[in-house]
Amino acid sequence: MAEKLMEKSCIEFADALAAKVSVPGGGGAAAYVGALGVALGSMTANFTTGKKKYAEYEDDIQRILAEGDVIRARLIELVFEDAEAFEPLSKAYGIPKEDPTRGEVLEAATKNALAAPLEMMRQIARAIELLEELDVKGSRMLISDVACGAVMSAAAMRAAALNVFINTKSLLDRDFAAQVEAEADELLAYVPRAKSVADEITDSIRG
Amino acid sequence: MAEKLMEKSCIEFADALAAKVSVPGGGGAAAYVGALGVALGSMTANFTTGKKKYAEYEDDIQRILAEGDVIRARLIELVFEDAEAFEPLSKAYGIPKEDPTRGEVLEAATKNALAAPLEMMRQIARAIELLEELDVKGSRMLISDVACGAVMSAAAMRAAALNVFINTKSLLDRDFAAQVEAEADELLAYVPRAKSVADEITDSIRG
Repeated sequence: MAEKLMEKSCIEFADALAAKVSVPGGGGAAAYVGALGVALGSMTANFTTGKKKYAEYEDDIQRILAEGDVIRARLIELVFEDAEAFEPLSKAYGIPKEDPTRGEVLEAATKNALAAPLEMMRQIARAIELLEELDVKGSRMLISDVACGAVMSAAAMRAAALNVFINTKSLLDRDFAAQVEAEADELLAYVPRAKSVADEITDSIRG
Repeated sequence: MAEKLMEKSCIEFADALAAKVSVPGGGGAAAYVGALGVALGSMTANFTTGKKKYAEYEDDIQRILAEGDVIRARLIELVFEDAEAFEPLSKAYGIPKEDPTRGEVLEAATKNALAAPLEMMRQIARAIELLEELDVKGSRMLISDVACGAVMSAAAMRAAALNVFINTKSLLDRDFAAQVEAEADELLAYVPRAKSVADEITDSIRG
């Protein structure tokens, strides 16, 4: 089922999110909102390319288009990877508490479950860098789309972080947990950067 | 094409957003991210209903489920309504500047184009109220999904607001513009409310 999640229609995906099933949940939604955020950056780049007014940025715009496609595709995949990690985690929680293998299996499944949201955060950070660049180099006609992309990327980053922390919280390996949390905190520093892009554009629109 | 937007697969919708076509754009993405945000509230309510531990809230949970479905459906429709308003606006901009009807046609199309994002904001405000309620009455097992729903609702609200302001900015009827902007500002007050829900849950997870 998981591998078909992104082949569902948008209506079906929203319905599946609302339903009494654990997958998709907040993690999958985070990855998809991240994909939509970076897609708005790609749209801006697509409308900027070839325009005389922005000719000095043409090489950068081409690079942004290529990178944006890669990030969008990776975030779409991560909806699937996040869903895939759920079943083993759910099964591990189901192991009887007196079973001596429980701790080890649960620890491994928890480490596995934080991999997808942590990778989402890395991808969304790159998306935010592209949106910052588009705020300078993208067509002014699409500036509100850059801002929309920035607020969505910030939300996706925060939602992915929650799905990292909810897993590191229960790890027994505190060194590993601390290392992951340190990386997540560094990536969370992109949230105020995305917010700055959105605030500055909102102010310029409101005048 | 517009009416089929939400019947596209999630992959196709993200691709369409990234493409060099104006629709879907930031407005449609805002409505859909809003639908995903409220869907996470519905999932939480779906996992809470019937649980002994939350029996005292059962009536509220049923109301939240019913309202959540209505809001999600309305936001899905608004992706379409937002797309539909684009073509007349685009045509109005295409009227030669010397044509005496241009001003009137453009004014009407601009007023029409802000209706969908303004209605999104109203729906998202209701979604944020439901998420606030779920933060108190929903199953603790899904608390990170409530927080994800809150950050997505806040992002959708900000993105929808941008699509209101970009239209009010160019209106000649300044009284109407001021009235719409005043309502949008009131609705934007829900953004810090959603952020509070997300912050408080994030803090409780991080301990």
